[in-house]
Amino acid sequence: MTDFKIIAFDADDTLFVNETYFAEAEEKFCALMSDYHSKQSISQELFKTQINNLPTYGYGIKGYILSMIEAAMVISNNTIPVEAISKIIQFGKELAEKPIELLEGVEQTLEALYGKYKLVVATKGDLLDQRRKLHKSGLGKYFHHIEVMSDKQEIDYLDLIKRLDIKPSEFFMIGNSLKSDVLPVLAIGGHAVHIPFHTTWAHEKIDHKVEHPNFRSHFKISDVLNTI
Amino acid sequence: MTDFKIIAFDADDTLFVNETYFAEAEEKFCALMSDYHSKQSISQELFKTQINNLPTYGYGIKGYILSMIEAAMVISNNTIPVEAISKIIQFGKELAEKPIELLEGVEQTLEALYGKYKLVVATKGDLLDQRRKLHKSGLGKYFHHIEVMSDKQEIDYLDLIKRLDIKPSEFFMIGNSLKSDVLPVLAIGGHAVHIPFHTTWAHEKIDHKVEHPNFRSHFKISDVLNTI
Repeated sequence: MTDFKIIAFDADDTLFVNETYFAEAEEKFCALMSDYHSKQSISQELFKTQINNLPTYGYGIKGYILSMIEAAMVISNNTIPVEAISKIIQFGKELAEKPIELLEGVEQTLEALYGKYKLVVATKGDLLDQRRKLHKSGLGKYFHHIEVMSDKQEIDYLDLIKRLDIKPSEFFMIGNSLKSDVLPVLAIGGHAVHIPFHTTWAHEKIDHKVEHPNFRSHFKISDVLNTI
Repeated sequence: MTDFKIIAFDADDTLFVNETYFAEAEEKFCALMSDYHSKQSISQELFKTQINNLPTYGYGIKGYILSMIEAAMVISNNTIPVEAISKIIQFGKELAEKPIELLEGVEQTLEALYGKYKLVVATKGDLLDQRRKLHKSGLGKYFHHIEVMSDKQEIDYLDLIKRLDIKPSEFFMIGNSLKSDVLPVLAIGGHAVHIPFHTTWAHEKIDHKVEHPNFRSHFKISDVLNTI
């Protein structure tokens, strides 16, 4: 199993904490809106708005702020004070400035693989956010470059493979989302490892088990080193 | 002059109309805010907000909408009705859905260069926006891929050259911005062609003349075909 040319790492919740911070922002949003509705229906409206806006805004913090603003107007039936909108923008800016919290074993894993394989980051987040995080994390030195994907479906991975000038079988993906980092990669003939993170955004959840010769699931990212 | 490996095209206002649509959105914004201030001071506040937000939001439509919302609150001293915020979000969504208007000579130029050079799009816009535009424009077939850059400074072009595995002298950039598409490319040893567009965003303006052996300015993009 040493014929891989590229090992690609998802960034958010694979290399460093992300969903936890989004969940924190959502908590603050629910608290801000608590006069209007129950926490559950606020969360539900926000999620619905996010999903509706995905084709227009894509993934990342900016689209999240815009969806919070839009949801706030719906939830409050346009009675929300503009000061609350300022607060939402502030939640977003705080999100962009969160410290980087590396996940266990990440640095050790990258150090061990560096020089043996070409390592890239493959993320559907916002390029600016991801560059900032990688820079702050100190992990930048291990990666050849960042691949920002507008989505992580089969077609997006085929695009990526083409751009990297490799065969699908030479592509190895490591990530925390079965839906985005594993299934489409297996489907196009690549290899994938799943490292679960304790929180998964509803949009990334799948409800079946994955079994495939090119697939493995590990508890910690450094377990990859035993099988690669 | 045939030792180029990559010809990179800026997208907005080089391949298709963009700034005109942003200017239209700004007109609508100024009209919406006209009760509070003069058009000039509204535009100025919006520009200031955009520039302040660039490190956090980067380029593209989403950051533009967020900056309009933020500027609206400052301009109105937090007295703007939430319905106006809804309208601003709507301006942004309309911007994302604008039809694609190809600039003169673009298709003919791409057709002539296709197959002879590897053509890429090099843009600092939002990946999602750019993919959507390229898809709608029908120009996607000419390009090997889209390079989204978080900025277009020398360091970003050096990154790009590294990622493309070529020498700076093998890189040829075509764009409408002297500041972003020409000067940094010349500085790292690449070649650049400037195709002016009638409207230039204030942030992209420079106040001196460019003279360099690797530089040319053309009135139309198809003039490139005579010199390449």
